Amino acid sequence: MHPSRGLGNHGYEGYQPCAVIRLPKDVNIALRQLLKDVNIALRQLLKDVNIALRQLQKDVNIALRQLLKDVNIALRQLPKDVDHFSFANNNTFQLKYLINDSYWNQDGGPIFFYTGNEGAIEVFAENTGFMWDNAADFNALIVFAEHRYYGESLPFGNKSFTSPKYSGYLTSLQALSDYVDLITHLKSHLTGAHTSPVIAFGGSYGGMLSAWLRIKYPHIVAGSIAASAPIWQFIGLTPCGAFNRIVTSDFENQTPECSNTIRKSWNFINTITSTDAGKQWLSSTWKLCKPLKTTVDIQHLKDWLSNVYINLAMVDYPYPANFLEPLPAHPIKVVCGYLTNSRESDKDLLKTLYKGLNVFFNYTGQVKCLDINQSSTSQLNDQGWDYQACTEMVMPMCSDGNNDMFEPQTWNFSEYSDTCYKKWKVLPQQDLIVKLYGGKDIPTASNIVFSSNGLLDPWSSGGVLRSLSETVVSVIIPDGAHHLDLRASNPDDPVDVVIARNFHRKNIRTWINKHNKSNRKDR
Amino acid sequence: MHPSRGLGNHGYEGYQPCAVIRLPKDVNIALRQLLKDVNIALRQLLKDVNIALRQLQKDVNIALRQLLKDVNIALRQLPKDVDHFSFANNNTFQLKYLINDSYWNQDGGPIFFYTGNEGAIEVFAENTGFMWDNAADFNALIVFAEHRYYGESLPFGNKSFTSPKYSGYLTSLQALSDYVDLITHLKSHLTGAHTSPVIAFGGSYGGMLSAWLRIKYPHIVAGSIAASAPIWQFIGLTPCGAFNRIVTSDFENQTPECSNTIRKSWNFINTITSTDAGKQWLSSTWKLCKPLKTTVDIQHLKDWLSNVYINLAMVDYPYPANFLEPLPAHPIKVVCGYLTNSRESDKDLLKTLYKGLNVFFNYTGQVKCLDINQSSTSQLNDQGWDYQACTEMVMPMCSDGNNDMFEPQTWNFSEYSDTCYKKWKVLPQQDLIVKLYGGKDIPTASNIVFSSNGLLDPWSSGGVLRSLSETVVSVIIPDGAHHLDLRASNPDDPVDVVIARNFHRKNIRTWINKHNKSNRKDR
Repeated sequence: MHPSRGLGNHGYEGYQPCAVIRLPKDVNIALRQLLKDVNIALRQLLKDVNIALRQLQKDVNIALRQLLKDVNIALRQLPKDVDHFSFANNNTFQLKYLINDSYWNQDGGPIFFYTGNEGAIEVFAENTGFMWDNAADFNALIVFAEHRYYGESLPFGNKSFTSPKYSGYLTSLQALSDYVDLITHLKSHLTGAHTSPVIAFGGSYGGMLSAWLRIKYPHIVAGSIAASAPIWQFIGLTPCGAFNRIVTSDFENQTPECSNTIRKSWNFINTITSTDAGKQWLSSTWKLCKPLKTTVDIQHLKDWLSNVYINLAMVDYPYPANFLEPLPAHPIKVVCGYLTNSRESDKDLLKTLYKGLNVFFNYTGQVKCLDINQSSTSQLNDQGWDYQACTEMVMPMCSDGNNDMFEPQTWNFSEYSDTCYKKWKVLPQQDLIVKLYGGKDIPTASNIVFSSNGLLDPWSSGGVLRSLSETVVSVIIPDGAHHLDLRASNPDDPVDVVIARNFHRKNIRTWINKHNKSNRKDR
Repeated sequence: MHPSRGLGNHGYEGYQPCAVIRLPKDVNIALRQLLKDVNIALRQLLKDVNIALRQLQKDVNIALRQLLKDVNIALRQLPKDVDHFSFANNNTFQLKYLINDSYWNQDGGPIFFYTGNEGAIEVFAENTGFMWDNAADFNALIVFAEHRYYGESLPFGNKSFTSPKYSGYLTSLQALSDYVDLITHLKSHLTGAHTSPVIAFGGSYGGMLSAWLRIKYPHIVAGSIAASAPIWQFIGLTPCGAFNRIVTSDFENQTPECSNTIRKSWNFINTITSTDAGKQWLSSTWKLCKPLKTTVDIQHLKDWLSNVYINLAMVDYPYPANFLEPLPAHPIKVVCGYLTNSRESDKDLLKTLYKGLNVFFNYTGQVKCLDINQSSTSQLNDQGWDYQACTEMVMPMCSDGNNDMFEPQTWNFSEYSDTCYKKWKVLPQQDLIVKLYGGKDIPTASNIVFSSNGLLDPWSSGGVLRSLSETVVSVIIPDGAHHLDLRASNPDDPVDVVIARNFHRKNIRTWINKHNKSNRKDR
């Protein structure tokens, strides 16, 4: 105390310390608990507000983008040769593409060009937010080109898949030529695009196309972001079991019970469906739209199941998404939340499995029955891809049931070939892609980023997992599923995706600068 | 003299110098002349002996090579897809190729692969001595592959050119695919060839193919010697008049009278053939097999003449050769030896011109009449090339009569296109080649030597005359005609050809070493 400062009149003289009031112990504990609860509640509130804000931000963003797209995306069609490589066929067809110039610097600004893959082009435009997110920064024109024989770009309309004389022009190189022609057309017809550098983007098969576009036509595109592009998923380049082993590890990493449940289910299905009563039981328990009758039906069911697991692995994104099917965040975690006891008896285990499957095919709760004849990937055109797999895209797959959770199956090319011939009247050519694009021998490739290669993504088995040169580089995203880096930025993105996207931007900038520099030199 | 060495008894003591006899002046002159004549005769004899020896050496060489070829050249045929780029057409045809393994190291020795061009493959096997001359040094396997639609490799036999549905598969990329397939086949079927580096060789259109093969399929060929390959003789890359200006300068460099005579001849032909009597006079003076009757006949004659001048420029070799036609050494010099006075009157000038033309079409003296309907290049298949020029190989050509010696003619694409459609029912696509192979924009090309580019060779107008990078280099042979460096070594070769061939060898060695090194690393 320092009374010297003239506090005399303020009653300090009469100050007396209170008596120490000791609260009873219970009250003390109760207060502490209260404090803790308030703290938790506040944190939760903060989190909720944060989430709501993020959601709001996202919604506004999406709405704005949609608005922009609606106003500015022009849907265009360009007549293209059905056959780029002969003068024997003069048919043409309309190639569909989406174009947006909201952000474009019309004096030589770059063109962001998505090399469409197996589906309607809108699916890729909606799921490749990375291009939209970066268009403004780069003043880029955005183009999404549809792959021939998908969406509305059917060269022979409804007949397109009825005979090889129509379907025969569905090849990767014909599609690349469509893109070369479209780019050439845009550059010569859009004012200011004449000297524009073109950056190719693509995910999955689209990523393969964007890499091959740069490899085969380096004068057409300055560089490529090839996400989750399994360009090595071909004969002699990758063991046939690698893909299924990665799918399995995605489930096993949640809990070994999960993959074990699936591994056990195949035998249970076989045993139960060996009787008519069993077929009936499974059909009704799993609410199948069409009851199981024949051995072919059973095989069909098992194929459908395998595809569900593969697709779950591909789209195991950290937030709710609607790429192949509407799904919750971390869908494998959700599915595996049901598959917790692989020691259940046959019927119980299959009942449990059904609960897990529900997540995939009926997340919205709208589906009345399980239709195993309907594609599990409603947004893609399975017919076209099935045909491509029967011609060029022969990707050997096998399983052993030990290192993976699938029913053992060897890779039998001649059987595969027979099936293809029955379906499409064509014979698959398993060495064509390597002969055409070089396989692992791509000595003159440059300016390609092979990205994603998420270790969750089964397609990383055939991906380029190491950099091949200074300008053909590989980016691994350990926590990434199928081409996660091409999706729009999201607050729930793992940090490696954020880093990868920055790396993409740096590379794109380098390619553009190099293009513009050599362009100026040429003038 | 040194008598001290005991020569005393050999009668030297009695030696007396003769009296100096002075010959009369005339005798002196006569003797000197005699000496001179003897000297000249001796020199001539030496020269003749030398020539005879060289000829003998050449004949023996050729005979030996022929013997080797007869024993070892296997003529093979491989069934190939008519259409490599669709699954709509299952036709196959037999691709012919020549193969010689006399020098081959069957443990991974290199494959020298000639990418055949517009003619029967034997023509190129006989005129590409460089490959034969170097096979032993490199322990190389020699392969000459025939270009589809030429020689015996006709996909649809006699019908091959009757309709676009047959002829439509005659394209450069389909031909490259034949070569890719053939190389892949050889490497997988010949013991010891599995890891063999492949070096592509080609001249003229064959040189374009060998360069494009490396550009598009760097995993298939390790490097290419592309001789006299006018890959830039396409729209927007080279002025249309450049080619004819070079032809002209080849004649003008002999003597301006020579090119002036030709330049003047067009008008004289036009004037004289404007009357029936004139047509008759020219037909009989020039010993035409079929007399001139119509304006079309006259145009035909002038086109034939232009082609003669062009072909002479292409094959202006320093020694007798039989590439396009049997010709003397330096044929332009021989032709110009007749065309020495451009001020002659019309009929005299045309008579003189005929003497010059004789050198080209009747060097052997066997030809009874001048057939302007018969190809002046009997060894090549003009039908196929004419078709290719009407589809992909649109090389704009023009002349103004001032900077060149030809009749003025502008480049009129729509007229050209109409003519093509009339002939072949196809429409030429003038921007196809640049779109496909990149034109001057070939940033990822490597391991190509663009050679010859002889300044005598009109095709150097569309050639690559400067090195584009450390591994895409240009070799100029100032005194070289059309792909002279690919021909067999010859004592009359100009020194720059010798240097160029050494440069080729050095590059081939580098490419092979690099291939083998990266191969060992992969093991």
